[in-house]
Amino acid sequence: MDKTYDVIGIGNAIVDVLVQADDDLIEHFGLTKGTMALVDEAQAEGLYAEVGPGLETSGGSAANTLAGVAQLGGRAGFIGRVRDDQLGRIFTHDIRSVGARFDTPAATEGPSTARCMILVTPDAQRTMCTYLGASVGLDPADLDLEMVAQAKVLYLEGYLWDNDEAKAAFIAAAEVARDNGGEVALSLSDAFCVERHRESFQELVDGHVDILFANEMEITTLYEANSFEEAADHVRGRCRLAALTRSELGSVVLNGAATHNVAPFQLGPLLDTTGAGDLYAAGFLHAYTQGQAIDACGKLGSLCAGQVVTQLGPRPRGSLKQLVAQHLG
Amino acid sequence: MDKTYDVIGIGNAIVDVLVQADDDLIEHFGLTKGTMALVDEAQAEGLYAEVGPGLETSGGSAANTLAGVAQLGGRAGFIGRVRDDQLGRIFTHDIRSVGARFDTPAATEGPSTARCMILVTPDAQRTMCTYLGASVGLDPADLDLEMVAQAKVLYLEGYLWDNDEAKAAFIAAAEVARDNGGEVALSLSDAFCVERHRESFQELVDGHVDILFANEMEITTLYEANSFEEAADHVRGRCRLAALTRSELGSVVLNGAATHNVAPFQLGPLLDTTGAGDLYAAGFLHAYTQGQAIDACGKLGSLCAGQVVTQLGPRPRGSLKQLVAQHLG
Repeated sequence: MDKTYDVIGIGNAIVDVLVQADDDLIEHFGLTKGTMALVDEAQAEGLYAEVGPGLETSGGSAANTLAGVAQLGGRAGFIGRVRDDQLGRIFTHDIRSVGARFDTPAATEGPSTARCMILVTPDAQRTMCTYLGASVGLDPADLDLEMVAQAKVLYLEGYLWDNDEAKAAFIAAAEVARDNGGEVALSLSDAFCVERHRESFQELVDGHVDILFANEMEITTLYEANSFEEAADHVRGRCRLAALTRSELGSVVLNGAATHNVAPFQLGPLLDTTGAGDLYAAGFLHAYTQGQAIDACGKLGSLCAGQVVTQLGPRPRGSLKQLVAQHLG
Repeated sequence: MDKTYDVIGIGNAIVDVLVQADDDLIEHFGLTKGTMALVDEAQAEGLYAEVGPGLETSGGSAANTLAGVAQLGGRAGFIGRVRDDQLGRIFTHDIRSVGARFDTPAATEGPSTARCMILVTPDAQRTMCTYLGASVGLDPADLDLEMVAQAKVLYLEGYLWDNDEAKAAFIAAAEVARDNGGEVALSLSDAFCVERHRESFQELVDGHVDILFANEMEITTLYEANSFEEAADHVRGRCRLAALTRSELGSVVLNGAATHNVAPFQLGPLLDTTGAGDLYAAGFLHAYTQGQAIDACGKLGSLCAGQVVTQLGPRPRGSLKQLVAQHLG
């Protein structure tokens, strides 16, 4: 079936505030390194007051992925909610400027655009505190189901499960995608997020998901497994493809009985892991929707993830197409 | 005389939007590489719509310098005007979070916080388009003259001369500083800015300035000189110290009949020259207000400028104190 879009994503529309931090600060705030904590506006302001200068950049897990797909030349669209404030305009500009479609109307009242404070420690790990703000205002009426029906792949971020209203909408969208011959991809997003919604995610993987993205911590949390191998055994066969990322060990893609091991790309010193999983999904899905073999999908995912960890922030600067030509051309 | 502050700066309170650009884009917009152009809000929006994703970070020439002085451990304060909007809150957070005092009340109506779109080309040069917004709302009543009287050095940015109301206020502030035994420093900011205000700057240098900061293009423009040497001959003796920066050639400090040649620091690949002059002034003034010799002032200026050009944006990330301990300790 001919489709207008390669990938359509639904997610929280977030502006990231990157700040440098040491381990003491992570401990002082009672955070767990490498994970995401939800905070309310007062907590967000309180944390912000205690950290150093920030660097603001568009973020949001699915939004990062869709921006990456667009940068690679894919036909991408994003659905998510900002407020009509300065950060909302920054988010809107950035995702449109790489060629992704983004038409969800901005909220004209209520909470401000979502912000995620990302504490980057010297080991390049990122620890996140998210104020969801306007992004939780996304409801079924905002979902452009015509756009969803026109997508080869509908991509959902697990973080959306923290929003009850949105959750029902995503499942409806997933059904629309599948009814129109599209596939559904899900990223598990974060181990704590999986912990909060384990049962719901397990059902989702069994019933609605064709392609699952998860890192080692997330997939072991989902199945309460004692090892990566045990978790991989659990998920195998429950969805068509499971792409499991393992940081410096690369990734493993499960495809029915077959297992594809994908090597990581090291393109420079590791600076900030923000966006690594999101860009892996971008590369994977771009190759996938271009009809490439699973090995090639994993390789492009690895390459994009390998680029984004050498810079600050989750949106690749510089040309991903050039990178592809250089390394996979 | 005992002073409460080492350096107090007055300048435009600006948030920078860093975007990557190629030379064609600079030409397409009719801009001159390495310089700053003033734009109105509609032009700013028009340009923004045509460029790629941005990275937002606090900027403003004098503000960058004062943030640098604070990061080095100096007692620093900044006077400038933001609007009470999201970018204004980012600016306020960032400068306070490094320990600089910033109390100018935010405007509650009128234009939004000033923004500067900085196009960074692959040669690491930056080309700027500034929408002055709320920052031109700075008027004499905003100048905390008690704070100015308590400064060893009052630092003014030349960009302020684009704002008629503010201009009179700065001259008044300069007189207060001197009447209280302080010194006045001026940065010429930009060659086009010098072109716009040549006569006024020449008078200012002759009558009010103790320490002048300028790069090669600015000082030759100020005296319509044919060479750096000719410009240096012109300025020598007109103010107590003239610190003239020459990019990869380092800097030259004129101190009466004496000439101090200062070598540059190369701390890594050149990534973005945004903030190089501002951080040179920060290092210089910090050493100066600690009573160090002129050679040491130039050296600290060079070191800070050398750091900031290895990163994106005009505010050093990471510890300047650590850098000093490592290279000058």
